[in-house]
Amino acid sequence: MENTLKIGIVGLGRIGQIHLANIATRIKNAEVVAAADISENLLDFARRHGVENVSTSPESVLTNPEVDAVIICTPTPSHVPYTILAAQHGKHIFCEKPLDLSIEQILAAKEAVELANVQLMLGFNRRFDANFLKVKDMVHAGLVGDPHILKITSRDPNPPQIEYVKSSGGLFLDMAIHDFDMARYVMNSEVVEVYAKGKVLVDSRIGDEGDIDTAITTLTFANGAIGVIDNSRKAVYGYDQRIEVFGSGGMTQTKNNTPDTHEYYNEKGGHLSLPLNFFLERYAESYVNEINVFVSSVLSGEKVPVDAHDGLMATAIAIAAKQSCQEEKPIRVEEILNALMA
Amino acid sequence: MENTLKIGIVGLGRIGQIHLANIATRIKNAEVVAAADISENLLDFARRHGVENVSTSPESVLTNPEVDAVIICTPTPSHVPYTILAAQHGKHIFCEKPLDLSIEQILAAKEAVELANVQLMLGFNRRFDANFLKVKDMVHAGLVGDPHILKITSRDPNPPQIEYVKSSGGLFLDMAIHDFDMARYVMNSEVVEVYAKGKVLVDSRIGDEGDIDTAITTLTFANGAIGVIDNSRKAVYGYDQRIEVFGSGGMTQTKNNTPDTHEYYNEKGGHLSLPLNFFLERYAESYVNEINVFVSSVLSGEKVPVDAHDGLMATAIAIAAKQSCQEEKPIRVEEILNALMA
Amino acid sequence: MENTLKIGIVGLGRIGQIHLANIATRIKNAEVVAAADISENLLDFARRHGVENVSTSPESVLTNPEVDAVIICTPTPSHVPYTILAAQHGKHIFCEKPLDLSIEQILAAKEAVELANVQLMLGFNRRFDANFLKVKDMVHAGLVGDPHILKITSRDPNPPQIEYVKSSGGLFLDMAIHDFDMARYVMNSEVVEVYAKGKVLVDSRIGDEGDIDTAITTLTFANGAIGVIDNSRKAVYGYDQRIEVFGSGGMTQTKNNTPDTHEYYNEKGGHLSLPLNFFLERYAESYVNEINVFVSSVLSGEKVPVDAHDGLMATAIAIAAKQSCQEEKPIRVEEILNALMA
Amino acid sequence: MENTLKIGIVGLGRIGQIHLANIATRIKNAEVVAAADISENLLDFARRHGVENVSTSPESVLTNPEVDAVIICTPTPSHVPYTILAAQHGKHIFCEKPLDLSIEQILAAKEAVELANVQLMLGFNRRFDANFLKVKDMVHAGLVGDPHILKITSRDPNPPQIEYVKSSGGLFLDMAIHDFDMARYVMNSEVVEVYAKGKVLVDSRIGDEGDIDTAITTLTFANGAIGVIDNSRKAVYGYDQRIEVFGSGGMTQTKNNTPDTHEYYNEKGGHLSLPLNFFLERYAESYVNEINVFVSSVLSGEKVPVDAHDGLMATAIAIAAKQSCQEEKPIRVEEILNALMA
Repeated sequence: MENTLKIGIVGLGRIGQIHLANIATRIKNAEVVAAADISENLLDFARRHGVENVSTSPESVLTNPEVDAVIICTPTPSHVPYTILAAQHGKHIFCEKPLDLSIEQILAAKEAVELANVQLMLGFNRRFDANFLKVKDMVHAGLVGDPHILKITSRDPNPPQIEYVKSSGGLFLDMAIHDFDMARYVMNSEVVEVYAKGKVLVDSRIGDEGDIDTAITTLTFANGAIGVIDNSRKAVYGYDQRIEVFGSGGMTQTKNNTPDTHEYYNEKGGHLSLPLNFFLERYAESYVNEINVFVSSVLSGEKVPVDAHDGLMATAIAIAAKQSCQEEKPIRVEEILNALMA
Repeated sequence: MENTLKIGIVGLGRIGQIHLANIATRIKNAEVVAAADISENLLDFARRHGVENVSTSPESVLTNPEVDAVIICTPTPSHVPYTILAAQHGKHIFCEKPLDLSIEQILAAKEAVELANVQLMLGFNRRFDANFLKVKDMVHAGLVGDPHILKITSRDPNPPQIEYVKSSGGLFLDMAIHDFDMARYVMNSEVVEVYAKGKVLVDSRIGDEGDIDTAITTLTFANGAIGVIDNSRKAVYGYDQRIEVFGSGGMTQTKNNTPDTHEYYNEKGGHLSLPLNFFLERYAESYVNEINVFVSSVLSGEKVPVDAHDGLMATAIAIAAKQSCQEEKPIRVEEILNALMA
Repeated sequence: MENTLKIGIVGLGRIGQIHLANIATRIKNAEVVAAADISENLLDFARRHGVENVSTSPESVLTNPEVDAVIICTPTPSHVPYTILAAQHGKHIFCEKPLDLSIEQILAAKEAVELANVQLMLGFNRRFDANFLKVKDMVHAGLVGDPHILKITSRDPNPPQIEYVKSSGGLFLDMAIHDFDMARYVMNSEVVEVYAKGKVLVDSRIGDEGDIDTAITTLTFANGAIGVIDNSRKAVYGYDQRIEVFGSGGMTQTKNNTPDTHEYYNEKGGHLSLPLNFFLERYAESYVNEINVFVSSVLSGEKVPVDAHDGLMATAIAIAAKQSCQEEKPIRVEEILNALMA
Repeated sequence: MENTLKIGIVGLGRIGQIHLANIATRIKNAEVVAAADISENLLDFARRHGVENVSTSPESVLTNPEVDAVIICTPTPSHVPYTILAAQHGKHIFCEKPLDLSIEQILAAKEAVELANVQLMLGFNRRFDANFLKVKDMVHAGLVGDPHILKITSRDPNPPQIEYVKSSGGLFLDMAIHDFDMARYVMNSEVVEVYAKGKVLVDSRIGDEGDIDTAITTLTFANGAIGVIDNSRKAVYGYDQRIEVFGSGGMTQTKNNTPDTHEYYNEKGGHLSLPLNFFLERYAESYVNEINVFVSSVLSGEKVPVDAHDGLMATAIAIAAKQSCQEEKPIRVEEILNALMA
């Protein structure tokens, strides 16, 4: 492989466009040499960014001999088949989360990339956000001592379309999965048990689809610590993304990011800016950072920092949470893994 | 009753001294006319504050004809017998929390005060703290819309003596009970179900006594909202007392109180003051406020704002939490009430 | 002198009442044994707080043999004559600021108390506020290294009555004088030069009286540091009282105090409480602290921490600022002192 | 002119590289077609970013017929001659600040661009920073009512090289000039008078060159408001860049930007991140924004938002400040303009 990683992107929706633009303008040592989307009218975006080889056939990109690595941004059901196809053609793979909603499929992808001896990195982008990185670094450096309590607040500004809810796997698998990954990452310990309490408080149509929109999930970690995540599909004041780790040596927490730092006081009170509205603004830099790490890992041959195992574990926790919520009792993650791998 | 409420205090330990000094110096329309403690050497405190009638017999105060109202600050096991005795002698009663660790005893006290037609107010002092009051007022005024998620952080700076742990009823009954009361108060809705995950992470001797020192407790409210309380017996940075309420219309939260507002920056970083160290500092004003409310309620004949029913419900939630933690499953509060009232 | 300081208060307006109530309820080792105000209807306040010896003759209090120390809260023109009378009768004196608007009068009072060998403490109460104390302590402990820049923001919520402006000496002498004292105190260095730019932006009637309502004042200190104070008679959001010290080793600053710590977010933005409204709320504790220090200094014979010299220097700086503003050039404080002491 | 602005850059030092990289990667509708630096070894940077036409002759770029607009990032003495040359060849010009240290030279450049009917935009990048923009927008929208007091804190993390100080024009002309521009911009009013107090407190070698390193500058605006800027060449805690505007209707202020939002508490205290270290980090986005505005203004034919007049006025204020500091009296800006334009 040369000094520049030649990348093919499949899927040119919102997140595919972000990766393409970032590589075109802000990522060193990488260029997009091919891009595909089944929708013809999304291809122009790639053309405008100088990608000459564009097509409506994702397979052509995944098998293109000029491509060193692929970025998979298509809908979830295609993640595993595309990962397997790319692996079979010797491509390194960056795949958006979730890898899949089922443990079996994730294991199939894991096996394929191991067999092909290629790297597979998952897009848990929040790991590459400055706030979460800082907390992770502090915890891993021992600044909170032994971690005792993890708290994650994760609330979206608006619920997704009902159509999306129907196939997304639900709040735990499409939304809280980021928080489950963050929990494992920051605590540096596996989640062994989950108890989730879910409610439909935002929109009854979400309940009609068998999903929930509000949840409090208690986690128990292998290292003895406990944690709690609170999720909501709708925070009227914007995207609420905070973390706190408390331990024997102290506590560290982060606040939301805002577009500016102003404080305004008039006779009615003090006023602050709202948090950045949603993930595109809030996590913009993390999307650049994660691809930078992917590119440099592949070029140097170092192991990528988020792999299929991480996808597997986050998904298992999410399935445990969903089951806990339905059965109204705590569920051990091991049960999920054993049952599905049996 | 005259314009000034004549108060007798029984129990002159730490909290008894606070109430006595506050009445002597900062509470209008009240004076301490009698005080008792079984320990002779605590009586001097009362004498120095001008109380002439001091004795080692609490009963003499509780039955003193000159006394209009009593403040009971003795150890928990005497709360109910003293309450009943005082009620039988027509005294209004302010009793420190918890009223008792058992539902039956609480009901006995409740019955006695109703029979005697006197008022009984419980010392859930945090209800009278400016931060918690502000959040309560905002929630009740509808500023967060329909409440969806309640979050309370409640961490002590240091665990109590092991001797105390042996008889206190444990973390849920001696510490989190304040948080359970706050949950009901702020949300204006009863807790119907509890799930608690407890751990011994601070001091193994606490575990030896069958108690825990770290907990995450999930609450389900009658109005459909859910909540979570995280407790620790030891926060090295001081007393951590925060609340957050999230709902369909917004979110309100409080920070800890600090001795000053300074921020200091040098080449090593930014620096802030620690939270006020413990409840005596943090809740100093709330102790004044609660007695002011008690005095004015009794003098005016208005109903006190925290009564035996509140003590009953907070205790029932605490017992449910303890049982949930032991049985590793959610417990309905109704079960506790029914079982014990059967 | 006995263990309890017997205090006489003259002047029972707003600040006199505060001192009287504080001594009655929150100050150890002191009691008010006499009080006077020329207005008969203010005497009831003293009677209600148990002061038996009340009169409409301040002189009777200042010369009362039973009085150990006096607190002078009458209008400014009487401060020096009352101080001299009290000193001649061997009383220690706590006098509200300013001691006087003229350097000569201040020196006369200084001479009288020195001759009588009594203590004279001035009511620069902000020195006893937790925020300002913290900054002072940090600066004196060397935490900002060599101080380079001092910044004080001092804005009132509302201008005083026009009647008051007519005789107060103006913004520099009635309002900024607190800031000038704070500047000397925190920096531990004398002000040697002043440049003030004043404007009438709040209320033209203030200008009609020859005063200003908005000012920026640059200070030069003997230790080489420089400072700036900004004053306004009217901040619609309440009492704005902040300080910042910057030096070779770092920077420390304080924020305003608020009634609670809440932050509220809804779809319109983030919201905070306003600062405490005015000095009675903002500096409530400082009034207790300063009298505590006065009482303990007098009882122990230690020197009081704010004396006539401090009053002299603050007044000289204020006069220099006023002159600088009028003559539109920097003025050396020494000039003021020399001219008036000549 | 086509849809894409063809840009030539002269000067490939630190700021020239920033602009080149930003245009190459983050600016739409513009490309760098030529670049020059007299230092051969800086040309590689341009080559690596795909600029084919690179040379050691700035003149060749300024006169290149293929170039629509030039960005001048060379040392200050060449700004005006290069501006004039470029204007004579019909190029639109973006020039780094200061345009020149002398009023005459600035006027010469102004005349040349007016004659050539080209646009000249100055690099007062802070106008394009989110925090300053927010405050400006709020003030211009009337949210603080009539502005009364402006406060700007502007402190560098480290003094420049002594060599730089020798020719920079000094603190007012090389550093505070940004603050003077900001003052005019935010207040939407001209500065009519300046009083500056300067000191050498950071490094005596700066004093040896006749410059100062610490200053407090009082500004008087045409609209009656007053303002103060405090500057230091060395803040050990990093780049300190704050603004506050106070008026009849309220007050708005900004805090420093930090790399993350974490707060950490341990037994020693609370801890925060330091401000972003210096202008490259703090104002990174503003450099992108200002070139975007330049490009879109030139392409659309709209007037650029910062022009030669702005450079003229900021320089005049800086010269007034320098003179005030030396002569120890307030100086009217009109005097400076009149004297130099006479």
